[in-house]
Amino acid sequence: MVQRGKLYVISGPSGAGKSTVIARLLKRLDMTYFSISATTREPRRGERDGFDYNFVKKEQFLEMIEKDLLLEWARYVNNYYGTPSQPVDEKLAEGYDVILDIETQGAAQVMTKRPDTIGMFLFPGSFSELENRLRARGSDSEDKIQKRLIQARKECERVGMYSYVIINDRVETAAEEAASIIIAEKCRTANRLHYFK
Amino acid sequence: MVQRGKLYVISGPSGAGKSTVIARLLKRLDMTYFSISATTREPRRGERDGFDYNFVKKEQFLEMIEKDLLLEWARYVNNYYGTPSQPVDEKLAEGYDVILDIETQGAAQVMTKRPDTIGMFLFPGSFSELENRLRARGSDSEDKIQKRLIQARKECERVGMYSYVIINDRVETAAEEAASIIIAEKCRTANRLHYFK
Repeated sequence: MVQRGKLYVISGPSGAGKSTVIARLLKRLDMTYFSISATTREPRRGERDGFDYNFVKKEQFLEMIEKDLLLEWARYVNNYYGTPSQPVDEKLAEGYDVILDIETQGAAQVMTKRPDTIGMFLFPGSFSELENRLRARGSDSEDKIQKRLIQARKECERVGMYSYVIINDRVETAAEEAASIIIAEKCRTANRLHYFK
Repeated sequence: MVQRGKLYVISGPSGAGKSTVIARLLKRLDMTYFSISATTREPRRGERDGFDYNFVKKEQFLEMIEKDLLLEWARYVNNYYGTPSQPVDEKLAEGYDVILDIETQGAAQVMTKRPDTIGMFLFPGSFSELENRLRARGSDSEDKIQKRLIQARKECERVGMYSYVIINDRVETAAEEAASIIIAEKCRTANRLHYFK
């Protein structure tokens, strides 16, 4: 019997280190699938279709919205971003745990559509540490850093909709916490009653 | 700030391998405390007071019952067994996660007194595997094995009161599952809201 996988969303402010933690997590756990987003924006230098994003035409994206083929979507400036349902559902049926890396508004959409979604919120441990990390990147202007911090505070106000908070002060510990959550969720009694037959 | 620890009960039929898994778990996780039971029975050869059990006089035990100083207790034949509350509460206050190894009726008492107790139920994976293990011990008569199996089925009927089921087909995997549950429970959002202040 293949046991259906579980759907996870990982959110967290820009600078929390989501991609790094997710990469470690995928290395560490078998049967875990990272779902990439679809977008209508142009690929940036070095981005690969089907790897960083699924790059699609605007008409295709609007059709997916129309036909309700997206678990969540959002429009930023003139570009659309979203998560197609089909690959997620296929992987869940094959027994994979599926991880989505999405911001809080998208996460809220997914949780509404799929109430059994398990939410993890990644946070560096404090707002001052987040600020340090954004500055350490050296890529953003002071104005941009302030905007990101305000945005981070807004996202953190929604932490209550997540079941778990992962503190990313060390990436190894954070990846261990994420992996532990996924292992623990597999151990929930409801998933294992078939052993007692 | 010391964050209060959590209380765990681990149950499972005789032969499930509780002691081995708990020993591995304690080695693996810091700040985890195994609470030993008090009993009025005589120490067996090799058993040490304060290590295997706290051996107490019957009058002491009856007084603990009287004064409601036990998290759970039971009487088997002419002996009493139970878990004194005080050391458990002290360790929880110091931030330790406290593990109790108790059978299902005692676990039910603890969960009633402390509704935030997290229950784990250890199971070898199937009743036939449990039977194999009981036979492999070579210490029990056929009659005794049959009685243990009937008792095991009774205990397994109460699995629904546990949050988690740990499958002990390999002790390493089982200990990893138990450790993951404890790590995941620490990550629950309610425990970590103070990071966002």
